[in-house]
Amino acid sequence: MENNVVFTNCVAEAIDRIAETIKPTKTFVVVDENTMSAALPVVSHDSATIKDAFVIMVKPGDENKNLESLSYIWQQLGDAGATRHSMLVNLGGGVVTDMGAFAAATFKRGIRFVNVPTTLLAAVDASVGGKTGINFNGLKNEIGAFKNADQVIVSSIFFNTLSATEMRSGYGEMLKHALIKGPDMLNDLMRQDVLEVGSERMLDLLKENVGVKQDIVFQDPTEKGLRKALNLGHTTGHAFESLALKRNSPIPHGYAVAYGLVVELILSVMQKGFPAETMRRIAGYIYENYRAFAITCNDYDELIGFMKHDKKNVDASEINFTLLHDVGVLALDSTASVKEIEAALDIYRDVMHLD
Amino acid sequence: MENNVVFTNCVAEAIDRIAETIKPTKTFVVVDENTMSAALPVVSHDSATIKDAFVIMVKPGDENKNLESLSYIWQQLGDAGATRHSMLVNLGGGVVTDMGAFAAATFKRGIRFVNVPTTLLAAVDASVGGKTGINFNGLKNEIGAFKNADQVIVSSIFFNTLSATEMRSGYGEMLKHALIKGPDMLNDLMRQDVLEVGSERMLDLLKENVGVKQDIVFQDPTEKGLRKALNLGHTTGHAFESLALKRNSPIPHGYAVAYGLVVELILSVMQKGFPAETMRRIAGYIYENYRAFAITCNDYDELIGFMKHDKKNVDASEINFTLLHDVGVLALDSTASVKEIEAALDIYRDVMHLD
Repeated sequence: MENNVVFTNCVAEAIDRIAETIKPTKTFVVVDENTMSAALPVVSHDSATIKDAFVIMVKPGDENKNLESLSYIWQQLGDAGATRHSMLVNLGGGVVTDMGAFAAATFKRGIRFVNVPTTLLAAVDASVGGKTGINFNGLKNEIGAFKNADQVIVSSIFFNTLSATEMRSGYGEMLKHALIKGPDMLNDLMRQDVLEVGSERMLDLLKENVGVKQDIVFQDPTEKGLRKALNLGHTTGHAFESLALKRNSPIPHGYAVAYGLVVELILSVMQKGFPAETMRRIAGYIYENYRAFAITCNDYDELIGFMKHDKKNVDASEINFTLLHDVGVLALDSTASVKEIEAALDIYRDVMHLD
Repeated sequence: MENNVVFTNCVAEAIDRIAETIKPTKTFVVVDENTMSAALPVVSHDSATIKDAFVIMVKPGDENKNLESLSYIWQQLGDAGATRHSMLVNLGGGVVTDMGAFAAATFKRGIRFVNVPTTLLAAVDASVGGKTGINFNGLKNEIGAFKNADQVIVSSIFFNTLSATEMRSGYGEMLKHALIKGPDMLNDLMRQDVLEVGSERMLDLLKENVGVKQDIVFQDPTEKGLRKALNLGHTTGHAFESLALKRNSPIPHGYAVAYGLVVELILSVMQKGFPAETMRRIAGYIYENYRAFAITCNDYDELIGFMKHDKKNVDASEINFTLLHDVGVLALDSTASVKEIEAALDIYRDVMHLD
């Protein structure tokens, strides 16, 4: 796999440069209603490629990452005369980059495409790994493909229009990468408030942080082994997301991951000798910045039910986790029993000041 | 690219063998209404894998190779509990194998799949090359992906239920491969009537014939150069197909290719020194077996218009063809002017006894 990610705040120049290499007969841009007004003008002001591009606008939000929107992108591409030598630029958060990338991967059996993530979460989480797709039949990312962008342009120039919640959500995934990488990166992140990081400093942080994911994906492009490291915090995080959705009050993905990290660090303490004090320090930082996802012991059965249905579980009788022996020291392919998970949730409620 | 095609009339055994390698948690089969009754019972009688499989039936015909049918396959897979460790077997003609393969390539970002072509055309044309997809927005194969099956099982056991027209259609593509390969293979094919070839002999012919395409695709998997050889007969063939469709009397793909071969051999005589006598001999064979696609000089403008819109033409001002210096000697990246094409169509009408 080539290293196709560039980190730069000169986004317009970067787009024009890749267009010079690809030499598309025509360029198309996918945006949503938000990036149409907040990001497109910024880029099109300085990029001749984007200025001349045909714009395809989809509705924002995960509920519109569906077959209808995908079909609309395909239709617009065809009607506006896209050929197999056209190029598609996806300018938006994860919904736009995932769905636009899948449209490009499948239009005329594949056209060239560039992803320009505009949210911190998409920059950290969706920029690397070649995962493209849509939700279908009530399931997230049920339909999709692995396909790398010709280029991913990671920048921090669009973040000034994001809410504090969106910034914190992205930072949740950054904390996960730091936990995988080691103490230096983790301490660096915990020393500051994501809302107070300047634009250039943020670009440096992103370069370092996304680098962790790049290294892992490079070594395991099709998710056979090492890539499971990236599931840290996610077995529990997905269960929290599902429960929140069922309660009709969804929580941002990065928040769910942050809460999930706390539970899985507790399991790491219980099983793998992860230092209890470090776990408490991290839980403290997460509580301070994210507060807690509220659960009682009456939620345990349901949470464990969600974990059992997670697609990573080949055999639903035991539950898979990625755990840590210490910050930066992975324990892949770990499992936990229902009793252990219940105990960990008890401790989670304690360290997160619930009840 | 691995060599993933097996030639065998022990289809049930071949399916069970690949299932033993893949070890799917569950197997699904896509059929259409025809192969549901004509092919599925034959295979399921001897294959434990197919006997236990969940069957997904789609409507037959190119007009049903669409987003609605694809969506139905995705839905059925999901509802019946397919996981990313499931396997899909596509049992049918080109519509079933192209669409089923695309469904497998995109369900949960890709599950394992096996293609079992049941028509001669699909065995020759759709079994190799990894082209998957559906028609969309009025265009053939507008949406799709390049993805190789884990295995393609080519056999001749299903051909006894095919019509003479279906057999001749497949043979049209076989003639094309023989023209690319050389005189021995071509003479071998022209010495016999496709309707009188026995089942074992047909399997041998297929092995040799599909081998031509395999060699080419192996050397050029993403259609950059040599693979254009496979377009022989197709620039004109597609134009004939489009005109027939417009006349509301569609012709089988392999027939269109056979007529297209005649026109493009004439162009080869005009431009590349292809022996005129060989061209006349082949045209005679095609007339004898396929009769002629009737055109007059009033159709020329429309035919040339269709050629100009062919997706292989980067610049619509000249028309690309794959031509031959002689049987087995390629002249890739040839072009012809409108005047030359008109002259070739005049000769086509003459050698095909039109007017």
